[in-house]
Amino acid sequence: MQYEMTWRVQYYETDSMGIVHHSNYVRYFETARTEFIRDAGLPYNRIEELGIYIPVIGVKVDYKTGAVYDEVISLICRPTELSHASFELEYEVRNAETGQLHAKGWSRQAFTDKTFRPVVVKKAAPEVYEVFRRIYEDDH
Amino acid sequence: MQYEMTWRVQYYETDSMGIVHHSNYVRYFETARTEFIRDAGLPYNRIEELGIYIPVIGVKVDYKTGAVYDEVISLICRPTELSHASFELEYEVRNAETGQLHAKGWSRQAFTDKTFRPVVVKKAAPEVYEVFRRIYEDDH
Amino acid sequence: MQYEMTWRVQYYETDSMGIVHHSNYVRYFETARTEFIRDAGLPYNRIEELGIYIPVIGVKVDYKTGAVYDEVISLICRPTELSHASFELEYEVRNAETGQLHAKGWSRQAFTDKTFRPVVVKKAAPEVYEVFRRIYEDDH
Amino acid sequence: MQYEMTWRVQYYETDSMGIVHHSNYVRYFETARTEFIRDAGLPYNRIEELGIYIPVIGVKVDYKTGAVYDEVISLICRPTELSHASFELEYEVRNAETGQLHAKGWSRQAFTDKTFRPVVVKKAAPEVYEVFRRIYEDDH
Repeated sequence: MQYEMTWRVQYYETDSMGIVHHSNYVRYFETARTEFIRDAGLPYNRIEELGIYIPVIGVKVDYKTGAVYDEVISLICRPTELSHASFELEYEVRNAETGQLHAKGWSRQAFTDKTFRPVVVKKAAPEVYEVFRRIYEDDH
Repeated sequence: MQYEMTWRVQYYETDSMGIVHHSNYVRYFETARTEFIRDAGLPYNRIEELGIYIPVIGVKVDYKTGAVYDEVISLICRPTELSHASFELEYEVRNAETGQLHAKGWSRQAFTDKTFRPVVVKKAAPEVYEVFRRIYEDDH
Repeated sequence: MQYEMTWRVQYYETDSMGIVHHSNYVRYFETARTEFIRDAGLPYNRIEELGIYIPVIGVKVDYKTGAVYDEVISLICRPTELSHASFELEYEVRNAETGQLHAKGWSRQAFTDKTFRPVVVKKAAPEVYEVFRRIYEDDH
Repeated sequence: MQYEMTWRVQYYETDSMGIVHHSNYVRYFETARTEFIRDAGLPYNRIEELGIYIPVIGVKVDYKTGAVYDEVISLICRPTELSHASFELEYEVRNAETGQLHAKGWSRQAFTDKTFRPVVVKKAAPEVYEVFRRIYEDDH
């Protein structure tokens, strides 16, 4: 299972080097992740309404080539690991036409309550767990 | 009365034109405004603890010259108008050494509760009003 | 003539008040403006290739209500004034479903060369001027 | 050898969760890194004037606790590895008063020319290499 979406690089995302500032790839990962989860049936704000927060607890990015202003890029994400307390995804950012790789990486998110204490999501919000289980099951 | 602080332009604040992205001046205004109010005795998060929110309801920026990466800039703000429901400040962003003007503008903020409904701050949070009254009184 | 596009509010665009940070509306204006001009036949990076830069020289935003995470918003822009040296647009940001107004404003941009000196775009880059002339003619 | 500086968390750096958006730690790393190098004698824009660019080629962040608005945080960085083609630093972000750890991580940067092709910095810009050599030598 894999989710893919396109994104038009915005002027404010670039920096003096003439390429997308490297911090914005972490934001691209978030965009792809939240769209992926919405696409699977659960908008992220619905998750927060159910009392579940999903702070990022780790992220890694390897940069290959710089995306430039006005470029259309593909944000690709794949589920890699789901536990009771957290889940991991991996990502690729590519030129949408040529497929040229700009960056790849992964992020890990925890399931917590509003005060950022870990929750066992299966018990705390079965509706949320069910969506994640499906996402990660389909992967095999 | 006038408040002035310096800021080092960050790389992520620049864009492909090689200058600070124009949206960031709105952020500079916010930085100057909140430092000014803290300096007058009231950290902004203390204001929120007292149940008062201060959303920006209007902002205007006139751009003159672009600030560049690594430049030290002066963020200058002056109180211009206080009412029961809102307050206004004007700003200048200058090169800290030469005084060259990069931008000037103003912003207006409302006093509201957490749900963004207007409050008469004098009644809702006298402690907050007192600080603002002092800031704006000193101006004359 | 009017250009309209939709935008999904991103998590990183929100702030501690739970709404889109006010500085991001200036970025929404830019997104709408550059898409509008591309839609009229001229990607902004093509304009830069022709040696024309379009720095923002003034912007104003009036904020009405806060857009929230995951909301789909309409970015609407309308050309208002074209001169040899600059052009102005006005904007509205609305909830895409209900039409509720979040903010409105305007921005003015100059035509310059790479060193930000004013150029008469009609002479410096007729191809660029022609697109703008059409955009602003159609408005009447 | 270690470099440490403080930073006041800005309102625009927070998100709807009420904490600093996780992407901003990558920006904090950049801020610490560039201040560190300037402190060692070489402002980053001087490096670019010498024709050397330093794009980030990898970054990793482990998040522990969320920094909040108005908090003063310490940005700490330490040099870990210098080669002819790249260098690595590790970072910690802590509450400046209590020392509570918010995040730690590392980043790796390449030495390139303006077109992002690798350069041997020792040959291409001895002045730059010298500063880095000193930074990394002192570490032992």
